[in-house]
Amino acid sequence: MKEKGIFITFEGCEACGKTTQINLLSEYLQKANRSVVVTREPGGTAIGEMVRHLLIESANADNMVPEAELLLFAASRAQLVREVICPSLEEGKIILCDRFLDSTTVYQGVARRLASESVRTINTFAVGELMPDLTIVIDVSADESLLRVQRRTTGKCDRMERESIDFYKKVREGYLCLVRQYPERFVLVDGLLEVKKISQRIWDIVGARFLLK
Amino acid sequence: MKEKGIFITFEGCEACGKTTQINLLSEYLQKANRSVVVTREPGGTAIGEMVRHLLIESANADNMVPEAELLLFAASRAQLVREVICPSLEEGKIILCDRFLDSTTVYQGVARRLASESVRTINTFAVGELMPDLTIVIDVSADESLLRVQRRTTGKCDRMERESIDFYKKVREGYLCLVRQYPERFVLVDGLLEVKKISQRIWDIVGARFLLK
Repeated sequence: MKEKGIFITFEGCEACGKTTQINLLSEYLQKANRSVVVTREPGGTAIGEMVRHLLIESANADNMVPEAELLLFAASRAQLVREVICPSLEEGKIILCDRFLDSTTVYQGVARRLASESVRTINTFAVGELMPDLTIVIDVSADESLLRVQRRTTGKCDRMERESIDFYKKVREGYLCLVRQYPERFVLVDGLLEVKKISQRIWDIVGARFLLK
Repeated sequence: MKEKGIFITFEGCEACGKTTQINLLSEYLQKANRSVVVTREPGGTAIGEMVRHLLIESANADNMVPEAELLLFAASRAQLVREVICPSLEEGKIILCDRFLDSTTVYQGVARRLASESVRTINTFAVGELMPDLTIVIDVSADESLLRVQRRTTGKCDRMERESIDFYKKVREGYLCLVRQYPERFVLVDGLLEVKKISQRIWDIVGARFLLK
């Protein structure tokens, strides 16, 4: 019988180290002979990547109203769930996704103050029945996040990265709130540790939780 | 005191004659010294036109799941409402919009069978408090609509136009149902009449309803 797939999402402020840690976890999992799919939001499908471009890179995105932003994220997510994540889960794969519906809850709901009931309804419509089996939040302070963004960009920031320190603080607080609210799904990892230590800690958590070690 | 703006939407099956009639009504209104804004959905803003391209023209759009489709339409609408329609109404203008939220109710809700409660919630989120003052449905049969689409396209149809006759029938029935349900907002116009007669009838309706003649 085919093993059941596992759906793990990574969340956190800008430049918290998600991408690095996803790649390292993917290596651990592949060494343990598991089939891994790495994907991201917005994006991960041809349609989603076009939405991503529109959201993040487009020169027009600065005029975007928060309601349109939320609906575009949701559209990319609806496509990713049905085109990539659900079929991969059925094939018994492990999906590592860089951001998922919690990003919308935090960025559009908490930080942009859209009505949480609307955010929830639209999130549910986008994902259907699917929820992550585990969500890893890599925690860094708002100051550290902003500092890293400034360090890694050479004058060219995307629209999320150009937000104020106050916005970054709201995002972080939003994540901490979710971790407290849903302790069975969320794990908080200290993003100020060394890269290697963070990856070891994540691999310990994932390995133990899903009996992969 | 500035006159209050008026928001009129045009709905109907593919190739029912909406665009032609919007342009003719715009001419009548301008002759009556009213300031007119003609716009369309999806589209009407820089962001909306990018979404339109993604929805209608993109080669990737054939893989699009209905949930993503609905959310993209809603995103374009959310932007159009806040960037164009509401400011224009405040300036006392008359807005003529080629498709609006009823298209989503009919195309995604009725014809693609997405849950009507979700469609309603997402529509409401996208438009906020705004509803059209008048919605003109130009009615042609499903057969006639399909015939006109085939006649006007030379091998190159967009994804909506490639749908089956059964889909066209559901769309028409969806519109007729809305007209019966909300007789105070909707007016049904026979799209099989001559272009000139249709435009005269629309101008009579609009002129009388808003005391413009």
